[in-house]
Amino acid sequence: MKISHIEHLGIAVESIEAALPYFTEVLGLEHYATEEVADQKVKTAFLRCGEVKLELLEGTSPESSITKWLEKGNKGVHHVAFCVEDGVKEALVEVEGKGVRLIDAAPRLGAEQLNIAFLHPKSTCGVLTELCEH
Amino acid sequence: MKISHIEHLGIAVESIEAALPYFTEVLGLEHYATEEVADQKVKTAFLRCGEVKLELLEGTSPESSITKWLEKGNKGVHHVAFCVEDGVKEALVEVEGKGVRLIDAAPRLGAEQLNIAFLHPKSTCGVLTELCEH
Repeated sequence: MKISHIEHLGIAVESIEAALPYFTEVLGLEHYATEEVADQKVKTAFLRCGEVKLELLEGTSPESSITKWLEKGNKGVHHVAFCVEDGVKEALVEVEGKGVRLIDAAPRLGAEQLNIAFLHPKSTCGVLTELCEH
Repeated sequence: MKISHIEHLGIAVESIEAALPYFTEVLGLEHYATEEVADQKVKTAFLRCGEVKLELLEGTSPESSITKWLEKGNKGVHHVAFCVEDGVKEALVEVEGKGVRLIDAAPRLGAEQLNIAFLHPKSTCGVLTELCEH
């Protein structure tokens, strides 16, 4: 697997509307898109920071994994997404062969129409990890 | 304040020795340095990932903030460090003027001899935030 860069950081927030002014007015980052991913029950706002995007994530339902994660007392960076050069499907086969537990056995469509898959934090030093390809 | 990019992600681990094979052999990232920051009671290992570094952090004492953070049940990304172009000192004045609570009132020397300062997660949407300059 060849990782080119960090594609985005997923940051869980209770309210995108309440969180955005910190990222745009204090940090001075550009907010360039907002999107709802209905099957994940999240609303997302995207900001640019060099080659990395910040993806603010707000749950749109009590069943959203983001809502549940925040309710457990977690805060801040929810996941790290790495961009893989050779395709997510190939990367999943490779990392599973190295003993990594997968959340997604096959790539699926995520925000911004990217092919994505999640690895289980039990296998990734506690960092919920997303692989994605452009 | 002008942020150019994410300088590094600080990732708390119980043992750098145990965590490194995941980052180097599964993710394929380059481990280029290990350093001890005695006054912070941490050992750090640095890996490259595009323009961002991953900084693995292992507490070297029960009093280390990293050890305490892990003991509270936290896992994964401990902090996000942004590189500011106009200097950390100036950035602290600016963000404090915008109502952000500071952990460090003035820049101090961090790992890799960078000038750094931390902002309080209460003011940064739960993301422990470091500003640094080269």
